[in-house]
Amino acid sequence: MSDPGGTGGLRAEAAALDAADALRAKRAEFVLDDDTVYLDGNSLGALPRAVPARLADVVGREWGRLRVRSWSESGWWTAPERVGDRIGRLVGAAPGQTVVGDSTSVNVFKAVVAAVRMGWGTGGRARDEILVDAATFPTDGYIAASAARLTGCRIRTVPVGDLAAAAGPRTAVAVVNHVDYRTGRLHDLPALTAAVHATGARIVWDLCHSAGALTVGLDAHGVDLAVGCTYKYLNGGPGAPAFLYVRRDLQPRFDSPLPGWNSHADPFGMAPDHTPAGGAPRGRVGTPDILSLLALEAALDVWEDVDLAAVRAKSLALTDFFLRCAEAYVPAGRATSVTPAAHAERGSQVALKVARAETAARMAAELVRRGVVGDHRPPDLLRFGFTPLYTTFGEVERAARVLGDVLA
Amino acid sequence: MSDPGGTGGLRAEAAALDAADALRAKRAEFVLDDDTVYLDGNSLGALPRAVPARLADVVGREWGRLRVRSWSESGWWTAPERVGDRIGRLVGAAPGQTVVGDSTSVNVFKAVVAAVRMGWGTGGRARDEILVDAATFPTDGYIAASAARLTGCRIRTVPVGDLAAAAGPRTAVAVVNHVDYRTGRLHDLPALTAAVHATGARIVWDLCHSAGALTVGLDAHGVDLAVGCTYKYLNGGPGAPAFLYVRRDLQPRFDSPLPGWNSHADPFGMAPDHTPAGGAPRGRVGTPDILSLLALEAALDVWEDVDLAAVRAKSLALTDFFLRCAEAYVPAGRATSVTPAAHAERGSQVALKVARAETAARMAAELVRRGVVGDHRPPDLLRFGFTPLYTTFGEVERAARVLGDVLA
Repeated sequence: MSDPGGTGGLRAEAAALDAADALRAKRAEFVLDDDTVYLDGNSLGALPRAVPARLADVVGREWGRLRVRSWSESGWWTAPERVGDRIGRLVGAAPGQTVVGDSTSVNVFKAVVAAVRMGWGTGGRARDEILVDAATFPTDGYIAASAARLTGCRIRTVPVGDLAAAAGPRTAVAVVNHVDYRTGRLHDLPALTAAVHATGARIVWDLCHSAGALTVGLDAHGVDLAVGCTYKYLNGGPGAPAFLYVRRDLQPRFDSPLPGWNSHADPFGMAPDHTPAGGAPRGRVGTPDILSLLALEAALDVWEDVDLAAVRAKSLALTDFFLRCAEAYVPAGRATSVTPAAHAERGSQVALKVARAETAARMAAELVRRGVVGDHRPPDLLRFGFTPLYTTFGEVERAARVLGDVLA
Repeated sequence: MSDPGGTGGLRAEAAALDAADALRAKRAEFVLDDDTVYLDGNSLGALPRAVPARLADVVGREWGRLRVRSWSESGWWTAPERVGDRIGRLVGAAPGQTVVGDSTSVNVFKAVVAAVRMGWGTGGRARDEILVDAATFPTDGYIAASAARLTGCRIRTVPVGDLAAAAGPRTAVAVVNHVDYRTGRLHDLPALTAAVHATGARIVWDLCHSAGALTVGLDAHGVDLAVGCTYKYLNGGPGAPAFLYVRRDLQPRFDSPLPGWNSHADPFGMAPDHTPAGGAPRGRVGTPDILSLLALEAALDVWEDVDLAAVRAKSLALTDFFLRCAEAYVPAGRATSVTPAAHAERGSQVALKVARAETAARMAAELVRRGVVGDHRPPDLLRFGFTPLYTTFGEVERAARVLGDVLA
């Protein structure tokens, strides 16, 4: 690749972009070090500074001193809905539709089985097909296959570009990743949702790589069900509990395959039969994981004064700038972006395909050694995630420069 | 009730019992306060002193500084098995059979569906009946019913005393609580396991109220599958992840209904089809909840020098003494123990049935106000849990005395 701007030009441009960055004050709310360019927030978000003190209070006072009283007195019992509503705001969901708990995989299971059951209607199970995004993060496909096996459906794996045409009268539900975890391609949530709805089927969106990175608009686009993790752009901590969105009008028909005691209408009544709760709690299962859940809640404080539109604008500016810097610094032919150039098709990461597949893992390790933390996905992709709340343009320039050296 | 020993006699006896207690040094390893007698460790165990510092390190250094590198460098990825093995030791399971993650409810689901599938054999699903302990903690029954619905089985609810006779050639699996959460009755795990096995069926034991309170002997008694929570006698913290035991020889046949990416033989290969991992990881699902999991790991340190036989001996001494003190202090006719008098039938709690059911909740609240924390279960039970690692005989005497005042 050529070097049109020159190193000095791109460095100066980075400095100017950082100076003009409307979100630049947010970086101070995270634990980061200047030696490392952390471009793996699409795997594990950085630690928000507010978390340690809050978690110490949860452990030392709420658990240590109040103990079991904290289920009511410290608001533990209602935390799944309370934290869910805060995430809801970030993905365009009005309160009362989002609940936090369990892993993304478990929530995919709830959502897919419940969606299939919504399609059964009074005439039996006419809809017996589950469409799965062919490029899905694997766990969604594995879990959808299990849901199919348990509900008597068949799975059809379809490239997202063909989903609208593939959906039909047999389709119960389509399971789609909002952003492709490998390429960073952003799919058209409004159009695909409408297309699937036109066939009478449901759609489950996996927002793992979009929640906290861009505007989602679940309510605005009439999405049926959505799931997502909270440890990437939401910075909730390693393995933090996932979220489940069930559109309000569908909640009475949300028939969970995991009807644990937490989703009972009267959980402490200890009745022998399960009567599902109304609203978002219907998506709960067992006792919520309080330490992780309240760490996540503290992590969400950084979003209080943040406009998602500004996040999206900066995200695109960061990825644009990274692509330009990589173009300037990476020797021709050594790596090619597989992330769409069009803004409407790009999430908040850039994936570069390296010319020699067998070197991808080694290149990623070498980048880490040189202070640039991205990751790789087999066989030949280097992934770089850009977190608008804390990634600077100066870091982007530096990362691309180191990348150029490593690939040279 | 009469007062045969007299207050002074029982107090002196308590002091003597505490002085002779082989486990008395363990109490200092927990955060407790002398104003409160905490008899709700069968709901939420007290905070082990080692947890806050360890969790602060996990958050501040492992997440905050190492970030994504901690998945390998800090041993996060293998924590579910590592912590599982430590719990395994406490329930009589050799390494490689226990994994930690998800809630108890979710693990009941995995275990019951997998057990049903083990019964299908080559000739189709001859075994289509799931037996459930009629007095089960509700979530096990709700989840078993869901598993039945999804696998084409029917549920039969049977009193535990009738389970051995009820199991037959149609029985796929029996789901039984080791200790009844209301009455504190301990069921005969060896005999019931053998009886269910004699019919060719599988058994799933719920160890929520026995793990950490008594010797279980999963391997010794040939148990098929077991689940349990870690926030009661194991003191792992509110909503800490649960455990799943799958006997080693059954692992190749453990066909999970929740085959998430963490249970893949090559999780980072990101293959489109699921090839299950061997061993305990086959019971995993999604990304493990690291903060809660490592808090639990730190909580388990208190067990390192503890002999479960000594725990069991003290547990029985505590409940014996509580029953004697209650007999002495509680006015006749105000409350009756529903916990078995026979040691072989008693877990580590005592439940008292109050004469006027409508007063149970109020009585429990009044006890809390007077510094005795137990709880109640509808309609008419007051529950008192005794945690041998930190409950003293002096506290037992005091709790019974306060109870006598409240019920007078």
